[in-house]
Amino acid sequence: MTDSGVSIIPISIFRESIMSNQFDIVVIGAGPGGYVAAIRAAQLGFKVACIESESYADPKGEVRLGGTCLNVGCIPSKALLQSSELYDQANHAFIMHGIGMENVSMDVTTMVRRKENIVTQLTSGIRGLFKKNKVTLLAGRGSFAGREGDLWQIQVAGKEETQTVLATHVIVATGSRPRHLEGIPVDNRLVCDNAGALSFDAVPKRLGVIGAGVIGLELGSVWKRLGAEVDILEAMPDFLAAADQAVSKEAWKVFTRKQGLNIHLGVKIGKVTAGEQGVAIEYENDAGPQTLECDRLIVSVGRVPNTDGLGCEHIGLELDERGRIKIDAHCRTNLENVWAVGDVVPGPMLAHKGMDEGVMVAELIAGQAGHIDYGTIPWVIYTHPEIAWVGKTEAQLQSEGIAYRAGQIPFAANGRALGQGDTTGFIKMLADARTDRILGVHVIGNNASELIAEAVAAMEFGASAEDIARICHAHPTLSEVMHEAALAVDKRPLHF
Amino acid sequence: MTDSGVSIIPISIFRESIMSNQFDIVVIGAGPGGYVAAIRAAQLGFKVACIESESYADPKGEVRLGGTCLNVGCIPSKALLQSSELYDQANHAFIMHGIGMENVSMDVTTMVRRKENIVTQLTSGIRGLFKKNKVTLLAGRGSFAGREGDLWQIQVAGKEETQTVLATHVIVATGSRPRHLEGIPVDNRLVCDNAGALSFDAVPKRLGVIGAGVIGLELGSVWKRLGAEVDILEAMPDFLAAADQAVSKEAWKVFTRKQGLNIHLGVKIGKVTAGEQGVAIEYENDAGPQTLECDRLIVSVGRVPNTDGLGCEHIGLELDERGRIKIDAHCRTNLENVWAVGDVVPGPMLAHKGMDEGVMVAELIAGQAGHIDYGTIPWVIYTHPEIAWVGKTEAQLQSEGIAYRAGQIPFAANGRALGQGDTTGFIKMLADARTDRILGVHVIGNNASELIAEAVAAMEFGASAEDIARICHAHPTLSEVMHEAALAVDKRPLHF
Repeated sequence: MTDSGVSIIPISIFRESIMSNQFDIVVIGAGPGGYVAAIRAAQLGFKVACIESESYADPKGEVRLGGTCLNVGCIPSKALLQSSELYDQANHAFIMHGIGMENVSMDVTTMVRRKENIVTQLTSGIRGLFKKNKVTLLAGRGSFAGREGDLWQIQVAGKEETQTVLATHVIVATGSRPRHLEGIPVDNRLVCDNAGALSFDAVPKRLGVIGAGVIGLELGSVWKRLGAEVDILEAMPDFLAAADQAVSKEAWKVFTRKQGLNIHLGVKIGKVTAGEQGVAIEYENDAGPQTLECDRLIVSVGRVPNTDGLGCEHIGLELDERGRIKIDAHCRTNLENVWAVGDVVPGPMLAHKGMDEGVMVAELIAGQAGHIDYGTIPWVIYTHPEIAWVGKTEAQLQSEGIAYRAGQIPFAANGRALGQGDTTGFIKMLADARTDRILGVHVIGNNASELIAEAVAAMEFGASAEDIARICHAHPTLSEVMHEAALAVDKRPLHF
Repeated sequence: MTDSGVSIIPISIFRESIMSNQFDIVVIGAGPGGYVAAIRAAQLGFKVACIESESYADPKGEVRLGGTCLNVGCIPSKALLQSSELYDQANHAFIMHGIGMENVSMDVTTMVRRKENIVTQLTSGIRGLFKKNKVTLLAGRGSFAGREGDLWQIQVAGKEETQTVLATHVIVATGSRPRHLEGIPVDNRLVCDNAGALSFDAVPKRLGVIGAGVIGLELGSVWKRLGAEVDILEAMPDFLAAADQAVSKEAWKVFTRKQGLNIHLGVKIGKVTAGEQGVAIEYENDAGPQTLECDRLIVSVGRVPNTDGLGCEHIGLELDERGRIKIDAHCRTNLENVWAVGDVVPGPMLAHKGMDEGVMVAELIAGQAGHIDYGTIPWVIYTHPEIAWVGKTEAQLQSEGIAYRAGQIPFAANGRALGQGDTTGFIKMLADARTDRILGVHVIGNNASELIAEAVAAMEFGASAEDIARICHAHPTLSEVMHEAALAVDKRPLHF
């Protein structure tokens, strides 16, 4: 304000105001791929904005960062898996340790609230990371609006107003959403996808699950441990077809015979009728038409990439036949300075794969040498036992005609596993028959998710099985089974 | 038998009988260093015998394989640590998960019996491995008797008879025994070493421990969790001086403040009086003379090498000033074809170090290139949180004048740790400031024992922190903290 009462906007503020809607990089989507890309880009000195619209039933209606993974995926499921696993241990394992107890109960409300608190803590944590790294958060739905000179116009449709921002580079990280089945509307009350299945208010007496993939098995396990009778219907004739066959076979044995999950393979889902109190699923298997009656149904039949409403058609962003954004090996789309990462592009829908792509793209934009070795991305299923693998399965090697040697050692031969009272499963290592280079490592057992890290690191260094055989492994640890599996590749295990 | 009734011993059997007491390799001691050396040597085609005399209170009085580690060390302690940890979780952690229960109790007899069963299973397992690999077990106390041509004469003093066997090579793997304090006789009833402390028949009300090393902390933790009031008296002024200071500091905080272990540092132990029902330990600290009254006392003040009665003096086998067998970098003693491995030689008294030495010696005898990188042997303490490290501490690097960069990330920033409800501790990575090569990794936290495996493998490959930063880590796992620590070395953590 001057004395005359006329507002004078200083040039610097004026420039700031012009600049305020222009960014070096705009990331659409704040899931693992997006928020990591944004943070890394900001670390590299770029002016970065990240657009997110989802509030995932936030009590204040605020936008929540972290995407599916953090809000209704990896993180909340792991919280429930931990709680239910402890409950299961109390009921089944404690007795062998000499631990006595009476009236073991699970308060589902407390369990779910704990999960919510963890999610809230982490999603707020990402807000903090954005602040620390000076990433601008734009709340709203991001879409391509057009091109303005060298810049991309991105529309951000917020709850109340819509703004347009300009970006030199755009990173699309819009993720995926659960695939729903035609004619089976998900209300997340009786018929649920992952979001609803993480927030049951009580243990269903009879739970149906369509899809015996990672999500179906993890969530089926949670509610089974807490007392539900669980039936999983799977269209494919093979169980866990992506895993090594030895692993699938062991998993099948444990899940069905020991844990009592009823898994039905090769079924054809028919009509699904949701009534007031339950759901009836008609399906067909070898024995003919069947009906599964349950109190709740989880539909976990894969995920579809989020490109609807992204404005791909406005700018000519190419999608593949499955609706995923087409990219090259470095996450470049067909359009200049438009990149895409995570679940919205081809490749495994894994958070850590998306994160690594986010980092790669940020570094490539900065002129650095970004690269991802897609052959060493680990897979994890957080059932109990856990399942984890990296590299190729035996079937893949066979079909590719690669000669290999295999070493497989059960956890039952391991002192730590015995001490922990948990000896299910094994580690299997596959190495090139000629060079001994490790081509795949497959773990089913307690702690597989962490044990796989050594295998990934070794494979990144092009390790041979002999290398692992020569590396000192602390005693007593489960990782000694990795050591023995490597020795077994050369038929000289010391403890088996 | 011939027709005439005269027994004719075929030459071949006669030769076998001459040969039966002559071996390519005789291993004295069937602990981790010894049994592994024997198995590996047998795999390499040698005729191998392994001598063991200890029966560790075996109900049938039979010799038990596996040494201290398996019978009264690593394995049984881990079994009790697991049982007591679950009991502790039931009492303190279950409530946050929504798990309710009443009248939680621990039946010590069942807990100890489970431990015994695990030990029995594993020690029998080694018998099986000996059989499978054709290692001859000689029950008795082995000692050097002299030289016969190119062969070593080894006396095996069994319970009933003494025999002498001949060996081209001898591998001494006699291990170590608990150091006792002068004037404090161990009866393993009131005053116990590790053996006794693993077999209490009830939870002592007040437990005293002399020595705050690995064994004192692990066993102190077991009985504290089960309800004992535990006082640990430590002569050294610093707590866990071998660990990185940041780790010791965190461990001190957790063990004393959160878990309520009473640890007294810099004390001078005076007179110890064991009465009918308890023990009184007089000691002095800064505040003057004190007395600790307890029901049971554990003495865990280190271990001494087992060379008594080995006949070192008969053959001139050289010991160092601390009674350990002197060796070169390849476990060769001063005598031709006499080797020594494990706790009886200098170096850390760790089972996996002994095992690796056993393999190395067997392979060297076979003319192979055996080698151990003593700089990448991991250390583990199985308290809760666990502590594990590999390589150098910050203090070591400072005293060696090596410029380094450090990255430290707390588990509290990790989604898996939050999911597991266990966020104590951190991972700290130290890398050369000039080359970025990883020089040390220090973990305190849940699962540290397994997480360290990745760090060991990476260091064996001469990895830089940047290498770990570029390796894909599964999400959500605790091993992501390793990834973040590596990023933090370069001051670019993504999640902290």
